[in-house]
Amino acid sequence: MNILVINAGSSSLKYQLFNMDNESVTAKGVCERIGMDGSVLTHKPTGAEPVVYNEPMPTHVNAIQLVFKALTAEKGGVIKSMSEINAVGHRVLHGGEKFSESVLVTPEVEAAIEENIPLGPLHNPANLMGIRACKEIMPGVPQVAVFDTAFHQTMPPKAFIYALPYDYYTKHHVRRYGFHGTSHRFVSARAAQILGRENDPNFRIVTCHLGNGSSFAAVKGGKCMDTSMGITPLEGIPMGTRSGDIDPAILEYVMDKEKLDIKEMTNILNKKSGMLGISGISSDFRDLETAANEGNERAQLALDIFTYDGGKLIASYIAALGGVDAIVFTAGVGENDGVTRARMCENLGFMGIKIDAEKNKQRGKELDITGEGGTVKVLVIPTNEELMIARDTQEIVNR
Amino acid sequence: MNILVINAGSSSLKYQLFNMDNESVTAKGVCERIGMDGSVLTHKPTGAEPVVYNEPMPTHVNAIQLVFKALTAEKGGVIKSMSEINAVGHRVLHGGEKFSESVLVTPEVEAAIEENIPLGPLHNPANLMGIRACKEIMPGVPQVAVFDTAFHQTMPPKAFIYALPYDYYTKHHVRRYGFHGTSHRFVSARAAQILGRENDPNFRIVTCHLGNGSSFAAVKGGKCMDTSMGITPLEGIPMGTRSGDIDPAILEYVMDKEKLDIKEMTNILNKKSGMLGISGISSDFRDLETAANEGNERAQLALDIFTYDGGKLIASYIAALGGVDAIVFTAGVGENDGVTRARMCENLGFMGIKIDAEKNKQRGKELDITGEGGTVKVLVIPTNEELMIARDTQEIVNR
Repeated sequence: MNILVINAGSSSLKYQLFNMDNESVTAKGVCERIGMDGSVLTHKPTGAEPVVYNEPMPTHVNAIQLVFKALTAEKGGVIKSMSEINAVGHRVLHGGEKFSESVLVTPEVEAAIEENIPLGPLHNPANLMGIRACKEIMPGVPQVAVFDTAFHQTMPPKAFIYALPYDYYTKHHVRRYGFHGTSHRFVSARAAQILGRENDPNFRIVTCHLGNGSSFAAVKGGKCMDTSMGITPLEGIPMGTRSGDIDPAILEYVMDKEKLDIKEMTNILNKKSGMLGISGISSDFRDLETAANEGNERAQLALDIFTYDGGKLIASYIAALGGVDAIVFTAGVGENDGVTRARMCENLGFMGIKIDAEKNKQRGKELDITGEGGTVKVLVIPTNEELMIARDTQEIVNR
Repeated sequence: MNILVINAGSSSLKYQLFNMDNESVTAKGVCERIGMDGSVLTHKPTGAEPVVYNEPMPTHVNAIQLVFKALTAEKGGVIKSMSEINAVGHRVLHGGEKFSESVLVTPEVEAAIEENIPLGPLHNPANLMGIRACKEIMPGVPQVAVFDTAFHQTMPPKAFIYALPYDYYTKHHVRRYGFHGTSHRFVSARAAQILGRENDPNFRIVTCHLGNGSSFAAVKGGKCMDTSMGITPLEGIPMGTRSGDIDPAILEYVMDKEKLDIKEMTNILNKKSGMLGISGISSDFRDLETAANEGNERAQLALDIFTYDGGKLIASYIAALGGVDAIVFTAGVGENDGVTRARMCENLGFMGIKIDAEKNKQRGKELDITGEGGTVKVLVIPTNEELMIARDTQEIVNR
């Protein structure tokens, strides 16, 4: 079975074609500048040279048509015709409270994704465009929606209700949703598998998705009990350019001092804050580590805050779970940055969390980095949201 | 030595007169509705009947004059003349970064309190009025300022810098300050005394000030390492009417939905949120517990969120300290509400934190409620900010 996985943004579209017989990627690529001048598709067939298409893509329909052209072309093509694609899986950002798992796309599902646009104003419209473009071009091919929020729908109310006037929840759907759900689900399931506790309802794990955006999840028996992102991906620990949690009174204070309106303020909290805001130089952890090693104090401070807040958040989720069996690091920083992993755990030794300095030097692959005397397993598990989407799609199509 | 302790609000003024020979309170009282119609002073001499003065108090100077009248009156008076007052200690909300301890009031100190008005716009002007009224009425009597923020000035930058553009800190003084500092200092010092670890730099304690406003502090060797309130007292766990931490993106979303401006929004986060917002019925924990026992689900949810978030915060501070020797509960809820104490710790057993159910039934006095097998001391210590202010005042005056 061949499954095409699509992650559509407002002006971009990423894809991966999976051969589910062996879960291998046959080709992947990205369309950029959709609807703009200079649009380009970069297509990467596995084991062959990339092919670049500099062709106009006024809409997402054009983009997907170009993807099919690339997939079936003589040069760089991997299938003979688009009829070889058995199903399409779409990443969808916000499922609101409607979706606690992946679903076959029906007109009702499309309508529900549309209803949730106010909660995901940048992503949901783009995700819908991707779905509708595929529907138009390949009618009859089953499509599946996989939501970034779905995994977190098992949280109890004490973890998702904000201490706000209650009708903000009932009228406006203001609650914690959480994001990166497909990633937290993938790595928590893989951790259970590695440790032989796949069907254990008492297996407790804290998953740390550390990248340009970062989130944590407390998972028990495969179910999410708490997560750090909120109604939007702004909440939690400081990230590349996002503030994470701050005193909510800061907004009025800064808006007054800097003569900003609330849109400008929220934009600064999303795009000019976090590691970039503290350091003043970069949102990239490699840049920050280089600068810190060269004596840049604010770069060091940004890294200190990230690991300090991350360590506190891990501890708080361990308390939420009443103890823990494993900690998992994943995503760009979590998979590759041993220094951050070690520093985030450096104060947690008293809870049996130890990291082996030698093992922790490795990167970008599955690792057990538990140190001597550690009673809690510490794992590195590369995430694979696309594979998870492909698996969900296959499973739903085969039902 | 007689020391008058004053806590001046914008339209109220509380006072206590201490005899420092035995640290006893000779009289205390409160002026209400200063600058309004119907102003009243209720004066309570220790061991005698209260006396009520329904007299006009157009200004704080009038209020303090009336306090002196009450303190020296034939009925309810406790001193012969105001010359028996040796010094005055003032509670001051916001010391900004200028004050890491209590200080003798000088013109420079007054100017600094004035400079910090933007950080404490409701309280600092009132506190200054109290100081200036005393200066006018009793020139030459030493006055001491005791800041709610001072104890927290030992926090390291990783605990007090927000992940915001750094010039918000350098230009506008946006950072975590923390509040209830006099209370956290009082109970953490008392805990060290009780446990015989007064001069131990490694004594680690988490202090939980739970009242209508709630804050936590991580204290090591008598120094604050982290605290939960921020640039204002809005940050941290949900409180009586305050939201505590929320996704900062909620403000724009709700302002748009409810047609609010940022002042109205911040006001709702301060006054209509927290326990009141979730439950819809009350900010008072006794009301909530009664309602929850009668089956009110939202009252129960409010209490669940309070104890759940409190437990997570305690755990995060234990991680910040790399372990812990004692947990201390104080203030209205912390001293009196055994159910809340027990629930906040119910998930922390794996860290050696146990509460004895029988001992925990007591209230309003110093208690060791550590349960069997607990390796971390759990204490209840009634706070006494006024006594702390009086002690600081005595110490500074005697230097």
